[in-house]
Amino acid sequence: MYRTHTCGELKLENSKEKVVLSGWVKKVREFGGMTFIDLRDRYGITQLVFNMEVNEELCKAAMELGREYVIQVSGAVEERSNKNLNIPTGEIEIIVESLKVLNKSEVPPFTIENQSDGGDDIRMKYRYLDLRRDVVRKNLELRHKMAQAIRSYLSSEGFLEVETPVLIKSTPEGARDFVVPSRMNPHQFYALPQSPQTFKQLLMVAGFDKYFQIVKCFRDEDLRADRQPEFTQIDCEMSFVERDDVLAAFEGLTKQLFREVQNVEFDYDFPKMPFTEAMESYGSDKPDIRFEMKIKELTDIAKNKGFVVFDNADFVGAIKAKGCAEYTRKQLDELTEWVQRPQIGAKGLIYVKYNADGSFKSSVDKFFGADDLKIWAGLLEAKPGDLLFVMAGKRNPTLTQLGTLRLEMAERLGLKDKNTYKPLWVVDFPLLDWDEDTKRFHAMHHPFTSPVDEDIALLGTDPGKVRAKAYDLVINGVELGGGSIRIHDENLQKLMFKQLGFTEEDAKNQFGFLMNAFKYGAPPHGGIAFGFDRWVSMFAGLDSIRDVIAFPKNNSGRDVMIDTPSLISSEQLDELSLDLKKDTK
Amino acid sequence: MYRTHTCGELKLENSKEKVVLSGWVKKVREFGGMTFIDLRDRYGITQLVFNMEVNEELCKAAMELGREYVIQVSGAVEERSNKNLNIPTGEIEIIVESLKVLNKSEVPPFTIENQSDGGDDIRMKYRYLDLRRDVVRKNLELRHKMAQAIRSYLSSEGFLEVETPVLIKSTPEGARDFVVPSRMNPHQFYALPQSPQTFKQLLMVAGFDKYFQIVKCFRDEDLRADRQPEFTQIDCEMSFVERDDVLAAFEGLTKQLFREVQNVEFDYDFPKMPFTEAMESYGSDKPDIRFEMKIKELTDIAKNKGFVVFDNADFVGAIKAKGCAEYTRKQLDELTEWVQRPQIGAKGLIYVKYNADGSFKSSVDKFFGADDLKIWAGLLEAKPGDLLFVMAGKRNPTLTQLGTLRLEMAERLGLKDKNTYKPLWVVDFPLLDWDEDTKRFHAMHHPFTSPVDEDIALLGTDPGKVRAKAYDLVINGVELGGGSIRIHDENLQKLMFKQLGFTEEDAKNQFGFLMNAFKYGAPPHGGIAFGFDRWVSMFAGLDSIRDVIAFPKNNSGRDVMIDTPSLISSEQLDELSLDLKKDTK
Repeated sequence: MYRTHTCGELKLENSKEKVVLSGWVKKVREFGGMTFIDLRDRYGITQLVFNMEVNEELCKAAMELGREYVIQVSGAVEERSNKNLNIPTGEIEIIVESLKVLNKSEVPPFTIENQSDGGDDIRMKYRYLDLRRDVVRKNLELRHKMAQAIRSYLSSEGFLEVETPVLIKSTPEGARDFVVPSRMNPHQFYALPQSPQTFKQLLMVAGFDKYFQIVKCFRDEDLRADRQPEFTQIDCEMSFVERDDVLAAFEGLTKQLFREVQNVEFDYDFPKMPFTEAMESYGSDKPDIRFEMKIKELTDIAKNKGFVVFDNADFVGAIKAKGCAEYTRKQLDELTEWVQRPQIGAKGLIYVKYNADGSFKSSVDKFFGADDLKIWAGLLEAKPGDLLFVMAGKRNPTLTQLGTLRLEMAERLGLKDKNTYKPLWVVDFPLLDWDEDTKRFHAMHHPFTSPVDEDIALLGTDPGKVRAKAYDLVINGVELGGGSIRIHDENLQKLMFKQLGFTEEDAKNQFGFLMNAFKYGAPPHGGIAFGFDRWVSMFAGLDSIRDVIAFPKNNSGRDVMIDTPSLISSEQLDELSLDLKKDTK
Repeated sequence: MYRTHTCGELKLENSKEKVVLSGWVKKVREFGGMTFIDLRDRYGITQLVFNMEVNEELCKAAMELGREYVIQVSGAVEERSNKNLNIPTGEIEIIVESLKVLNKSEVPPFTIENQSDGGDDIRMKYRYLDLRRDVVRKNLELRHKMAQAIRSYLSSEGFLEVETPVLIKSTPEGARDFVVPSRMNPHQFYALPQSPQTFKQLLMVAGFDKYFQIVKCFRDEDLRADRQPEFTQIDCEMSFVERDDVLAAFEGLTKQLFREVQNVEFDYDFPKMPFTEAMESYGSDKPDIRFEMKIKELTDIAKNKGFVVFDNADFVGAIKAKGCAEYTRKQLDELTEWVQRPQIGAKGLIYVKYNADGSFKSSVDKFFGADDLKIWAGLLEAKPGDLLFVMAGKRNPTLTQLGTLRLEMAERLGLKDKNTYKPLWVVDFPLLDWDEDTKRFHAMHHPFTSPVDEDIALLGTDPGKVRAKAYDLVINGVELGGGSIRIHDENLQKLMFKQLGFTEEDAKNQFGFLMNAFKYGAPPHGGIAFGFDRWVSMFAGLDSIRDVIAFPKNNSGRDVMIDTPSLISSEQLDELSLDLKKDTK
């Protein structure tokens, strides 16, 4: 038996007990003929004591232990004279009677402390050491706790967790698939699922009624900072539901998770905001509503005053930065440059200072007098001391640019309280999105999303105007999940494919099995999928999903710890009937 | 709102309530001016009634409904005159007041009844209809229940569920990997995990202490009837444990699962049987101990009596078939042919009838008199009326052949009671297995399995004799899971790789990251993995795992419903820098 207790559980009431502990040597300190060791395991830290006068040999053995050695000790629990009340075991120590080295350790490339990680490259290469640090392990403990809470809640609500296949079929719609060559079917490939979308719909056709799964999904995309080639979704689907049934079910899940894991209680229904309102007021389809600072449109009152920028614009809008009228020239220039960076791409930034004395100072003083600016200020409910930012141009990018500036100003003004959570449902998304490159409409959500009933007639005449029965759960500006009511009518689905530019042949090739299934009594159904990694990282208070994943990949899709992807043998390639193309791009 | 209740919940106490139900039309019957419909959903069946006299139009609409139409009805709950007490809703019916067809259905290729499935090919092609059948859906409900019970038990025992990556590195040891070409790293490949073995060991190095995961694993093998290219494991690992700690932990899980799901209580410790005993007594490393019929060795007393078959054999053994002395010549011939089939490969089968009158009749009467046979009978504790089967040859295949015959006789004699469960741990497996083809030892379990301490010295001198700290959980002749204590010592691991014929280079290439990790304080650790699909199928009373998987693949690894694997576009191949080899085998 390697231990009677863990390093996190011995307290004052265990005094005088004989115990056996195992763990890692965190620190060795010598002090006046005594040697103290902090012994660490997953559960905590316990202080070990060796006394030169009592047992010289043992004490010397202890002095030779290196950091991260794995040891086993036996001894008696004693009350500590020098208590550390910051840790649960801080009132006791172990007077060690015997010591066994279970395994040695080379000097680790960084110390296993919350503040020390050796930098990102080293952390990832030695991820098994990085995971020893409390701060990292706690994220994965949180992930475990959330997964159990989700499963337990959804099970109690009658949802069945069903495993859908990982080796499925490649479909060109959507992001790029990872593919898997089949040895038994030469020149044919499986694909890894971007989501279990079609399978969960088939489960509804199969009468499963309520399905969920916490499931790995895969996307072969060029990776941005917060993307991983494999990620985890909470995937859900229900039958015989309208939109609000789905929202109610998953608002329930959300509230339960906040209650159980974050100790946060929501005693109100989450607001539902139409997509157009989110765009017009917040310049984003995932508005952060922890703070106001809404966008106000000035187009009508700003045009035809001789300022060519406004006159040529089809949209003029502004936000108000509370109490910022004293911003310096330098600060304003820096913000102007900030919005002009290619990531945002604004042409420029106009400011209006509503000075504390009631006067106005703006970068458009030449065209707008105090009377004009006072009207603007009124529209934005600005008070003396406030600062307005105005942008103009095409409606679409300008709203987004204002929205981005809004988030930045909130950051600078400290309005993004990490301990405040403001959830909402964004609803009534457009069904289709016009793509200039391919000159065709794309499904904004996916091709099975149902249009809003009263908009179906527009599908043939003005497809861009059709709203979808789609919804996103947004919390603090983060899209945690999204879904839709699906099309269950075969003819409507055919019309939809047509609008998306699929030939009947294409549609049949790619989705034939789903369309076939729909011929045999598909119930009305809809669902949602949440980004589990993102949800965990929100609860952990992290900006990136990387540290809520045990073994993440880097931005080139590599696992630097196990060094993969890697070459395979020519025998493997032969078996798969594949050749490597000589000229690679 | 599509429904106020499901089709499985209305009872007599709901009489007179106005309700709305949705579901599938299972059956339409007309009877004396009335139309009855069985409406089905996941939760049950409710009888709908339409009366020609009360509402002719509605009744006619009902008569036009086809099987598997999806409908919504509203009406009042009434007590049934003709009660069906076999179903929970059998005391009531719904007097329908309005009817809406939510979706039509073509005539399904087979009726959705427990007894009707249209045959395997049709079932698989229309799996979404097959899944509508109660018998199939119940298997997946059982699977859900078991998964929740496993997670809840292991969580309560302090295990953390950690997701390990799916895109990992190809390792030639073991079965064949599925590989995934990397677009961003041309000519390099990921592999799909055959198990998370190395990652769970890294988690132990990381101090995670107790890990589990219910996880998809992948093997590109030629498929036998009961194999799937993707399958699910309950994967577990613990630190600071000896073998018996692991067995105790998972005996706990096993007992809890039986208690919670099967309502079976084990009030005893599972027996531990050494591998050699299993082979000698049962001719199998997964003995079915629901019944005795143990193999007894006759070598010493059977040799040197002039029978050349025995004299040339290095092993003679027998089993006893209770009460079978009256088997006819025909029956005995048929059994002889049965054991001579290539799947078993026995040279022949000798019988000894211990007749009811105390006399003997055997196929070796020429060489063995009644006195000899009486000694045999004594060894096998045979009584008048019993039949002995004797086989001879090399010890190894002969034991297995006798073991196979033992199972077959148990089947014929009705000794395999499906409602009796007899678990045991098989322990002390050989560490290494000699492979005649490659002329080298292979790891019987995997290359990280620890040898039994007192056998380590034999590694250099007599490797075939070394026992492993490996164990299997066997129930009713089915291996549900297996595992081992791992090697945590770097030098022992190196010695092991050497015995397996790995060059230092090979070992470094394939397992370098694990060996590196072991340099930084690897704790003693061990674990186990269970075949989840198999466990569910045992609880479901099925012989195959296929029906406990929602969307299984066929024996060529194809999903015939979605028709995959399939061709991909040349653009996809270009992006992956791959060519299809012209000449395929």
